[in-house]
Formats: sequence, structure tokens, C-alpha cells
Amino acid sequence: MHLIKFIEIMAILVGAFSGFIEARRKRMDLVGVFTVAFITAFGGGTLRDILLDKRPLFWVIHQEYAILIFVLALVATPLMRTLRHILSERLIVIADAIGLGLFSVAGVSSALDAHMPLFIASMMGVITGIFGGVLRDIVCNEVPMVFRDGKPYAICAFLGNWLFLLMRAVDLPYNLALWVSALFITGLRLVTWRFDMRLGR
Amino acid sequence: MHLIKFIEIMAILVGAFSGFIEARRKRMDLVGVFTVAFITAFGGGTLRDILLDKRPLFWVIHQEYAILIFVLALVATPLMRTLRHILSERLIVIADAIGLGLFSVAGVSSALDAHMPLFIASMMGVITGIFGGVLRDIVCNEVPMVFRDGKPYAICAFLGNWLFLLMRAVDLPYNLALWVSALFITGLRLVTWRFDMRLGR
Amino acid sequence: MHLIKFIEIMAILVGAFSGFIEARRKRMDLVGVFTVAFITAFGGGTLRDILLDKRPLFWVIHQEYAILIFVLALVATPLMRTLRHILSERLIVIADAIGLGLFSVAGVSSALDAHMPLFIASMMGVITGIFGGVLRDIVCNEVPMVFRDGKPYAICAFLGNWLFLLMRAVDLPYNLALWVSALFITGLRLVTWRFDMRLGR
Repeated sequence: MHLIKFIEIMAILVGAFSGFIEARRKRMDLVGVFTVAFITAFGGGTLRDILLDKRPLFWVIHQEYAILIFVLALVATPLMRTLRHILSERLIVIADAIGLGLFSVAGVSSALDAHMPLFIASMMGVITGIFGGVLRDIVCNEVPMVFRDGKPYAICAFLGNWLFLLMRAVDLPYNLALWVSALFITGLRLVTWRFDMRLGR
Repeated sequence: MHLIKFIEIMAILVGAFSGFIEARRKRMDLVGVFTVAFITAFGGGTLRDILLDKRPLFWVIHQEYAILIFVLALVATPLMRTLRHILSERLIVIADAIGLGLFSVAGVSSALDAHMPLFIASMMGVITGIFGGVLRDIVCNEVPMVFRDGKPYAICAFLGNWLFLLMRAVDLPYNLALWVSALFITGLRLVTWRFDMRLGR
Repeated sequence: MHLIKFIEIMAILVGAFSGFIEARRKRMDLVGVFTVAFITAFGGGTLRDILLDKRPLFWVIHQEYAILIFVLALVATPLMRTLRHILSERLIVIADAIGLGLFSVAGVSSALDAHMPLFIASMMGVITGIFGGVLRDIVCNEVPMVFRDGKPYAICAFLGNWLFLLMRAVDLPYNLALWVSALFITGLRLVTWRFDMRLGR
């Protein structure tokens, strides 16, 4: 339980941090930095909950996360140059891969609770995992990175979501399915990234 | 009934195909191609249902359409060059005009069922007809085509929606109103396109 | 009561007008001008109501506002050049500041009615106040102005929302809290704009 909480916070922080970086690259001010960080961290889950018509939203129940990002935006803006040195690209990719795994599996599981058909549930998992970044790129006036760089990212989430659905279909325990699938997504993302594998265009 | 089903599938395919083309033009990978096709085909109806708070969404009930687009994205990507030769511009415009008519009238009728006031219902019809393309252009980082090319498109949907509302107001049968209005929209779009008529700017 | 109605209409008109200007700058046609004006005027409140799952939406209940913008789009397009001369930048900033105050406080108050926690309520107020403009800029394919120009805008709304929450927490009358906070936001925006104060980047 404590581990989940820890990873969850880490995933949100990583999302927020990638928002920080992009917002700074676009020379945004404090308001932009906070908003883009917030959208990146919570956009995917929020879109999923709107599509499923589920309320209250995650960040409404846990306003401490919103406050955390707000404080970080205040603190991080002057520290951004230093932070970028400390946080190497490798570290960011690893944390982001953990976030992708966790968010995706949380998404597919939540869609399953809402009695979605299987293919839709797998899509909801992908949406939860990737649409924070998609919305970040739209607000920053870019073609979303995840749609064009050809590196397996959404695909990892998609395959891992089906692993989860399969494990649930053969009645494996919920927690086991959750952890194995999240680990699978994170691992697949890291392996394909490490060996620079590409999707055909 | 079979005819409606056929046209519906065709309209979705046309929407998806215009998404394919735009995604490829932006050099997107497989994930981008699928997502943009999906957004183009279902974005308008999804936005309408979110505004009306109607669930489950169309593509949640009919997951076969989502799967169809998924399979097409897999198959179409390598075939895209060939497909663009086979599908002439004229064919695309015709199919798109049929889609515009059908989606718009479905939108206004669905808004009427939800007891929307008349002007709002006519707007909901237009949203259903055009916002798939608008969202496609936003994701592809373009100013939406329908807002700037000056060719009658949304206007055709708007006028046809009022024709539907008028026919319902004088108690003409639902099916007649539906078909006449959809045909009116498709015809008006094709005629104005053929004679290259423009809206004043 | 009449005064609120008057200011409300004025705020919507100002939002719509800023949408008109931006849409014309992008050389949009009539459909684009109407849509962008509509999104600018109602986008913030609509996003808030979707996040809170509140229906029917404001512009569905008051379809007269949607019709008003529609008529204005028809009339204003040829008059735009004249209008821009009559409406000086100063006048637009003042009207926009009034709109910011009114929309923001309406947003925070509506979030409080929906039992949102305090920080979320303050965010909902800011969303109501600024996201019309954010969505306008996204549709017009720009990085949202409010995220990058460094002038206090969202911050004014944020502080004013907390003033409202504070006044409600110490049980001051609802109407008093509403008016004082709206006035505070408008005043703060105008003062910081007049003296060209900036947020640090």
C-alpha cells in the first residue's frame, strides 16, 4: 500500500516535471508552468473519467496533489536550470516509464470496473497513460510527441493492458495482474528505448 | 435499416480516412495514425455527448467500429500511397459530404431527444458534423480547415439542421425529416463545392 | 439583479469580441469567427461544468446568448475594421478585467456549491475566468497568451478567489463576498496592467 502511494506520487511528479520542462522551453510564466504541469500530470486520467462519466475526479478527491504541483511550480521555476543537470535524461525516462505502467494499468482497471467492453477498456488504459503528454503538447502548440517519434510508447501500454485483461479473464488475482502488467509495460518501454527500437512508418 | 448501417459505417470510414491522410502528412507513426483517425471519426459525436452528458458513448456501445479503425490503421499505413491514387479527391469529397449530412442530422435529432432548445439543437448538429475534423486539425497543430477555407461546410449542416427542426415542428414523420435533411446537407455541400462558391470574409 | 445581468452580458460580449479579433487575425471565415467567439465567451464555464459534471450548461439554459453571438458574428464581420477603431485597447482591457472578475468569482462560488475542497474551488474559479481565452488560442493554433506574457492575469483571479473563500469562511454575506472579490480581481488586473508589472520567469 505504501509502495503504491509512493509510486503514484512519483508518477505524478514525473508528469508534472515533464510539463515544467516543456513549459519553460516555450518561455511560459509561472501560471503557464503550473497549468501545463498540472495538465500533464492529470490530463490523461481526467479525460478518461470524463469519457466514463466518473466523478469526482482523482485530483478533486486528492487536492494535496494539486497543491503539491502548485508549490513545486513556485519553487521549481528558479531551480529549473539546476534540476535539469541533476535529472539526467535516463532518470527521466525511467521515472516516466514507471508512470506509464502505473497510469495505464490503473486506467484499464478503472474502465473494467465501469463495465467497458474489452477493447475499449484497453484504449482507456492507453488514454490514461499517454493523454497527459498529448494535452501538454497541444497546449504548447506542438504535434504530440507520442504520435510522431516512432518509439514504442503507447504500444507498450496497449500490450500491457491486454496482459492485464488476459490475466483477469483467467481469474488470476487482481493485485498480481495489476503489478505484473505495470511491470511489463515499464520493462517493455525501457528495453525498446534502450535498444532504440522503432515502429515502422 | 441496412442502408443506414451501411452509410453510417461509410461515414465513419471516411472520417477515419481523412484522419489517416492528415496524420501521414504530419509524418506520424502508427499510434498517431490510429489516434487521429479515431478522433476524426468519433470526435464530433463524443464532444456532443459530453456536452449533453449522455453515456455510454457511441463508440463504447459499438466497439466494433473502434476495432475496425484499429485494423485499418495497421493495414492502411503501408497501403496509403496506393489508396491515395485510387481514392480521387472527388470521391473523398462525396463520401465526406454524405458523412456530414448523416452525422449532423443524427446530432440535431439526438439533441432534440435530450430536450435542448432549438438553436442549441441546431448547434449540436453542427458540432457533431464538423468537430471531428476540428479536433483532427488541433491535434495535427493546424488552424482548423473548416474555420478558414471559406467554403460552405458548417453552414450546409446548419441550414439542414433547421430544415429538420422545421419538418419536425410541422409534425412530418421522423424518418422523412431525417432523410430529407441529410440529403439536403449532402446536396448543398456538393453543389457549393462543385461551383466553388465561397462565404464572404 | 439588473446590474449583474448587464455585467454578465457585457462580459460575454467582451469574450466574444476578443474571439472575433483573434479569428479575423487568422483570416477565418464566418463559421470560424462565430465558433471562436463562442468558445472564447463560454469555454471557461463549459470546461468547469464538465469537470464538475454539472448540466445543463449555462449557454444551453440561456440560448439567447448563443443567438446573440451568432447575430453579432453576422453583423460584426463587415464592421470589424470600424469596431477596432472605436474600441481602443484600453477599453477592451477594462471590459476584459470586469469579465475576469465576474467569471472567476462565479466559478469559485459554483465550485463551492458543488462541495469542492477549497484549493480545487479556487482553481475552478481561475479555469472559469481564463480558459475561454486558452481554448481560443488553442483553436487559433497559438501558445495561450495567458501562459506566456508574464502579466498578472490568472494570478489576480486566483488571489480574488481566495479572498472570496476567506470572506465566506468568516461567514460574511454571500453577496458582499461576491462583489468585493470580483471588484478586487478587476482592480488588481487593471492596476498591474497600468503599471506594467510582470511575473518573474
